[in-house]
Amino acid sequence: MYAVVMAGGEGSRFWPISRQACPKPFLNILGTEPLIVQTLKRLEGLVPPERTLVLVNRKHHEVARRLVGNLPEENLILEPRIRDTAPCAGLAAKIIEKRAGPQTMICLPSDHIIHPAEALRECLGQAEACVKADPTALFTIGIRPSFPATGYGYILRGEATGQVGSEPVYEVLSFHEKPSMAVAEAYFDSGDYFWNSGIFFWRTDAILDAISRGLPDLGEGIDELEPDLDTDAMQTALARVYPRLPHISIDYGIIENADAVRVVEGHFDWDDVGTWRVLAAHLPADDDGNVMQGTTLCEDGSGNVLYAANDHLVATLGVRDLIVVATPEATLVTTRDQAQRVRELVARMKHEGLDRYL
Amino acid sequence: MYAVVMAGGEGSRFWPISRQACPKPFLNILGTEPLIVQTLKRLEGLVPPERTLVLVNRKHHEVARRLVGNLPEENLILEPRIRDTAPCAGLAAKIIEKRAGPQTMICLPSDHIIHPAEALRECLGQAEACVKADPTALFTIGIRPSFPATGYGYILRGEATGQVGSEPVYEVLSFHEKPSMAVAEAYFDSGDYFWNSGIFFWRTDAILDAISRGLPDLGEGIDELEPDLDTDAMQTALARVYPRLPHISIDYGIIENADAVRVVEGHFDWDDVGTWRVLAAHLPADDDGNVMQGTTLCEDGSGNVLYAANDHLVATLGVRDLIVVATPEATLVTTRDQAQRVRELVARMKHEGLDRYL
Repeated sequence: MYAVVMAGGEGSRFWPISRQACPKPFLNILGTEPLIVQTLKRLEGLVPPERTLVLVNRKHHEVARRLVGNLPEENLILEPRIRDTAPCAGLAAKIIEKRAGPQTMICLPSDHIIHPAEALRECLGQAEACVKADPTALFTIGIRPSFPATGYGYILRGEATGQVGSEPVYEVLSFHEKPSMAVAEAYFDSGDYFWNSGIFFWRTDAILDAISRGLPDLGEGIDELEPDLDTDAMQTALARVYPRLPHISIDYGIIENADAVRVVEGHFDWDDVGTWRVLAAHLPADDDGNVMQGTTLCEDGSGNVLYAANDHLVATLGVRDLIVVATPEATLVTTRDQAQRVRELVARMKHEGLDRYL
Repeated sequence: MYAVVMAGGEGSRFWPISRQACPKPFLNILGTEPLIVQTLKRLEGLVPPERTLVLVNRKHHEVARRLVGNLPEENLILEPRIRDTAPCAGLAAKIIEKRAGPQTMICLPSDHIIHPAEALRECLGQAEACVKADPTALFTIGIRPSFPATGYGYILRGEATGQVGSEPVYEVLSFHEKPSMAVAEAYFDSGDYFWNSGIFFWRTDAILDAISRGLPDLGEGIDELEPDLDTDAMQTALARVYPRLPHISIDYGIIENADAVRVVEGHFDWDDVGTWRVLAAHLPADDDGNVMQGTTLCEDGSGNVLYAANDHLVATLGVRDLIVVATPEATLVTTRDQAQRVRELVARMKHEGLDRYL
């Protein structure tokens, strides 16, 4: 079994701590270890480094190399452009097939929070049995909702199609984007929905087949790359082909249109840590509900998230429910309620010619 | 006539732009010229540089020297400690007397906004006539309130004691600290109150006499300094004596207890620019009432004051009526309503050992 860790994103949602030069997976954003390091550690004992691929944007080669430890050099794959997860998964599947023929492949985001690691390993340990029983299906891990979240995508499950160990495998009826509160409550009450964890597994031939049928442009691009993979010409070929590949995610581009999609429940705490507000929920708060990281001072305030990097001081006076994030270069101020709009702000900064702060 | 410009303060109210190393008078805080430069320019044509003294804390010697232009070296007086305005006025009066015998002396803060300069000169041009008519009195300039301000001190005037030109000179009945809104409205409606501009004039012998009677410790200290003033031993003497001098303002320490205090109306726009909120009123606002200086971006916000220094970027998203001030070292976030509490925050920073940011 192979593992593919996807770390090729931009990370604009955690601006100004995450920047183009150092997106979220590479940041020690929880004050412990960079998220990609945590992700790789969770795989220890399940998939060895020789069978783990990490895909990053080539501009993050250096920072990634420092963090991936004993990962073999040829397993750190450099994407020349930001192209979302579908091209990433397709490229990884093709590399694995070229090296070892069709294999079971698990595919994980590099920047999620998962506890405990043992439960993730247990869940993914069933991947081979699942794909053996249903070799053409694509599998996703669902998380049973513990509250009506509006910040996650949802999966509507259908009938059980089988069982591995004591765990049912369900048919997937549909995927749903982040819902409104009313819809989230209906999903939660029905008991038929899982949160979409963004963790997948499948046989490499199954995903490549699904790509060829659902995203023929991507399929052709990957086929064109094949002769050059793992050769000296690989980077040149990637630089030639990648700009043409569609900018699309695994969910939208592949899974939603595939014939056989299954979901298995993951019995672990999971969070995709999509906003500053969500991140704050994973950090300790003081008696007034203020979450503070770095050099900060919160005078007469409550419910704030204060995050200061590189010895910059953030000092607030008499404010409530704000998010203040600052580095020596830039300061972000927004409210807890609007944390999900940071991408909008980043887009506006590009528009205004403020790229040097991104 | 001599002019004394007082610039020896700490400037904690404009933290983090004003810092211990560079308080408000020395900052180009309005985006035009440092306030002390504006103050000196307003005196042009009224008092020549040879008869103008500027008092600064000695740690600001360099920045002050750069800004005071053609002021003679011996007229830039270095205070070895922060001691508020009463010691400053007393020391200046003593230096002037030692150099030239008793003189008329005008005494001005270095960091106020005044328009037009011509009106200030006209007002102060009457100083000599005023003190000639009433040589033992202390004079202050009052500003007729244009609204019930809560951010200024007030002066209750009594009967007119005389007239210079067409301008009445009033007896001062009492001084009042910054009032509540209800009290400010009563002051405003009565028509008998002026705002206290902090600009004074008097004969040097009158102020020294008032100090000796009202603040004997200060009077003795100044007398002890006298032999060393304008000699090579001056800095040593100041360093010896200043720590013992009381930390007190002209208003509290001298004027409020003096026998004969007079007020003359100043017919100019005046502001002591005491807080970020007040400063913002002197800067242009966009259509949503946001005041922005430096590299700033205000997405979906209104009524904010955003101030960024030294190429730091301040970006806000969906916030209202905040004050955000940032440098590469530190960020302040508060509300417009609480701008007057920044000194509190600075005190807390000292208490928390964050002096390196001050």
